[in-house]
Amino acid sequence: MTYITEAWYPVVWADRVGRELTRHTVLDEPIVIYRLENGDIAALRDVCPHRRAPLSLGKLKGDTIECGYHGMTFDCSGKCVLIPGQEIIPRTAMVRAFPLQVKYGMVWLYMGEPKNADPAKIFHIEQYGKEGWHAVQGDTLRIECNYLSLCDNLLDPAHVTFVHASTLGTPAGAAVPVNNDYGESTITVWRWIRNGPVIPLFEKFGKLQGLVDRWHYYTYSMPCNFSIDMGSCVAGAIPDMEKRSEGVQMFTCHMLTPVDERTVLQHWFHVRNFRTDEHDIDAALSAGLDMAYREDKVVLERIQIEEERDPHFKNITLGIDAAPMKMRRMVAATIESEAAGRP
Amino acid sequence: MTYITEAWYPVVWADRVGRELTRHTVLDEPIVIYRLENGDIAALRDVCPHRRAPLSLGKLKGDTIECGYHGMTFDCSGKCVLIPGQEIIPRTAMVRAFPLQVKYGMVWLYMGEPKNADPAKIFHIEQYGKEGWHAVQGDTLRIECNYLSLCDNLLDPAHVTFVHASTLGTPAGAAVPVNNDYGESTITVWRWIRNGPVIPLFEKFGKLQGLVDRWHYYTYSMPCNFSIDMGSCVAGAIPDMEKRSEGVQMFTCHMLTPVDERTVLQHWFHVRNFRTDEHDIDAALSAGLDMAYREDKVVLERIQIEEERDPHFKNITLGIDAAPMKMRRMVAATIESEAAGRP
Amino acid sequence: MTYITEAWYPVVWADRVGRELTRHTVLDEPIVIYRLENGDIAALRDVCPHRRAPLSLGKLKGDTIECGYHGMTFDCSGKCVLIPGQEIIPRTAMVRAFPLQVKYGMVWLYMGEPKNADPAKIFHIEQYGKEGWHAVQGDTLRIECNYLSLCDNLLDPAHVTFVHASTLGTPAGAAVPVNNDYGESTITVWRWIRNGPVIPLFEKFGKLQGLVDRWHYYTYSMPCNFSIDMGSCVAGAIPDMEKRSEGVQMFTCHMLTPVDERTVLQHWFHVRNFRTDEHDIDAALSAGLDMAYREDKVVLERIQIEEERDPHFKNITLGIDAAPMKMRRMVAATIESEAAGRP
Repeated sequence: MTYITEAWYPVVWADRVGRELTRHTVLDEPIVIYRLENGDIAALRDVCPHRRAPLSLGKLKGDTIECGYHGMTFDCSGKCVLIPGQEIIPRTAMVRAFPLQVKYGMVWLYMGEPKNADPAKIFHIEQYGKEGWHAVQGDTLRIECNYLSLCDNLLDPAHVTFVHASTLGTPAGAAVPVNNDYGESTITVWRWIRNGPVIPLFEKFGKLQGLVDRWHYYTYSMPCNFSIDMGSCVAGAIPDMEKRSEGVQMFTCHMLTPVDERTVLQHWFHVRNFRTDEHDIDAALSAGLDMAYREDKVVLERIQIEEERDPHFKNITLGIDAAPMKMRRMVAATIESEAAGRP
Repeated sequence: MTYITEAWYPVVWADRVGRELTRHTVLDEPIVIYRLENGDIAALRDVCPHRRAPLSLGKLKGDTIECGYHGMTFDCSGKCVLIPGQEIIPRTAMVRAFPLQVKYGMVWLYMGEPKNADPAKIFHIEQYGKEGWHAVQGDTLRIECNYLSLCDNLLDPAHVTFVHASTLGTPAGAAVPVNNDYGESTITVWRWIRNGPVIPLFEKFGKLQGLVDRWHYYTYSMPCNFSIDMGSCVAGAIPDMEKRSEGVQMFTCHMLTPVDERTVLQHWFHVRNFRTDEHDIDAALSAGLDMAYREDKVVLERIQIEEERDPHFKNITLGIDAAPMKMRRMVAATIESEAAGRP
Repeated sequence: MTYITEAWYPVVWADRVGRELTRHTVLDEPIVIYRLENGDIAALRDVCPHRRAPLSLGKLKGDTIECGYHGMTFDCSGKCVLIPGQEIIPRTAMVRAFPLQVKYGMVWLYMGEPKNADPAKIFHIEQYGKEGWHAVQGDTLRIECNYLSLCDNLLDPAHVTFVHASTLGTPAGAAVPVNNDYGESTITVWRWIRNGPVIPLFEKFGKLQGLVDRWHYYTYSMPCNFSIDMGSCVAGAIPDMEKRSEGVQMFTCHMLTPVDERTVLQHWFHVRNFRTDEHDIDAALSAGLDMAYREDKVVLERIQIEEERDPHFKNITLGIDAAPMKMRRMVAATIESEAAGRP
């Protein structure tokens, strides 16, 4: 399988990285991640170039890793600094190091040419850290499906009514069509559902009752990151659709790690503008979101099995598929561009 | 793998089908089966044509299935009757429905062209339901082997002495040769073993003692159904071999579901002419038969592993292989006929 | 995968073979092994040539095996002696029998042409059974890796410091280079580490203290057998390196069964010249060795996974790889010779 490689991918929450060697997989690459003595974090290919023992089986000595098989030792730039029993260190004795940034509590790796690793290109959401907003780190869900299936799902308001009836959806939304806005490396799918009942999540935590206007804005950013702007207000209270922050608003953000062809990690957090000081509801909100994402997981893993069973089946296309199909074309075109060596 | 498709195949006992959506696999096809409000049973391909979610993950609403992902709704003929958020339903929005019959308590599906689905072609045994005979529904055994290996086994009296020593066989039978009668889509393998000891099953339940004549008639019907006529009488009591019903006689019938290349379901029942009113022995007889079939399962699953390990091994052929080999030629010729478009 | 076939391979400890039929796999061949009435041991291919049921599922009758499916019966030379229901036994009705020897408590099979099966070519170690030496049967470890990876490991003193720090190694040895002696079908890698601390094993059992000279001689014999001569003496006590038996000396011998491409059995025993009458330390020594070999197992199984994940990765080569690389070239050349029909 091929992936977009000239991009930043999330891999693990930074607060889960300590002074142990831990193994991760991103785009089929095994990667060892560990914290340096100065508090920074490093990421190397998790394969000793000598006999291919995983470096994560070795020992962390200061900021270097000593391979557990023959003691070859690498610094955090991937350079071999010691070969026991041998004075000359061959030039080829090195492992790939990955450019690394921490943003939104998440470790991001640049999977392409290090010289292209511009931190400004990491997924961004302006409300994070801004006054009046409260950000809550969520969790990581492992789903046994191709990451593009999860991307389909995260660009798809139409499934909410059916998959998340008990958490995020209400039957009222089923028939409302969506709008699609396409950027160069972004897609936004959005709709307003007016004069409907409040969804269970906002009824419980947003203190809304009666008829509301509610919206979804699902925004995709290449290669596979999402912010979903969900909000509600008393019916008719926000005539200008750009002033959504006057209502009860919550962004859930999803940063995906394509592990391999059939496995994806979904890392998520939320940012909200209501009850920002009441941190005791953070866990309850996260639990509700986690439950909803597990509902998707069930469906996506079954679809994965079906797709592997019969790779030549031709899906029929509905109106709701426009944005997911556009997303897949954008990804395919970018992969093709990279293969052709275009910038 | 290819199968005979213009045929009725058994899939599940009808009394196990209720108002839930249950998933089955026949000839590699995933199928959802459920009971309609009027008591009938329906069978659809268990794949939503939109994104391939299994329909069995959805909801049964009346006699329709609502897909659990986006709410596409199909009636029991496979026709899409609702797409949420979209007024026009594309012609291609349908799933395959399978012609279905219930016979001998079993749900049968026609896996070929619906127009060819003639119920008269379902496996038949005349004693079922006839006066003087008592039919007992058995069970379903899942065996991890190709269905043709189980067909070999069910056309093969010679293995009984060795595999079923404690249940159906006695050493006396080992050396008695078999006769083979071939029809257009049937094969019967039979033998009489005269003046031998009674087999354990008939000793216990048929109340026979001392020397007996006993017979086996193994009858195969395409594609993969069997009746096995086992019986015994006091030695010499039935000179006319066609009057076997004067003795203690029991038909065990086997209806096979080829699930995939390496899995088969063996559904079985028995019909007997002795102690027909004593229903308390039904379960004991079934338990004895079940034990015997599990003895076959052990052998067949090991052979399957060996065949997969070394697909090019050439078996040697013995006299007892004539009928199984004929059966395999009949199946292969029918598959070839279907591929060539011959009726 | 191809293997050297004109060779004796170990398969199972003789004292674990009784009057049951047990299944083993050597070079991808399934083999049934059992003890004859006269106490000898026989080995046949574990596949009935009729329908491929494993013979090990059948019954041992005297020295013959009756297949559990149709009763075909084979003697210990592999000749079919009975086909129930059939008078003529086809010439082809036989199974392969393997030439078999017992040496060092181990059952050895000749996997090539029986006429070439010269017992003098079985792996040999002269100290076994000699006065002043005590031999202790060890155990069998199953490792999920290619047998050549374990061969690499058993020709490689350099890993001891890193993998076996708590059992066989000390940091002192890391930098001492090795010597390689090459024979026609043998390789010896050896080194002396002088004036170093005693290793944990000899400190505990060999009653050595203070500074010692210690040595390793790793000797490989085709196809995949090893003796490892480990020993120590008070620093400077043995000026002549050929007089190692004057010190505390222990041979650990490793006889490998390549089961299939990704599985190997490591059978091992030791022979020692110290505390030869104190049999109560045998188990303690074996436990220590077993723990060390399990340390290798962890590394080797992870390398196997990595090699399967990326078969085209090119390892870099260090000085310590000379002997393992020579070993692999010897094996490859012998396989090529056999394929070309050269003696």
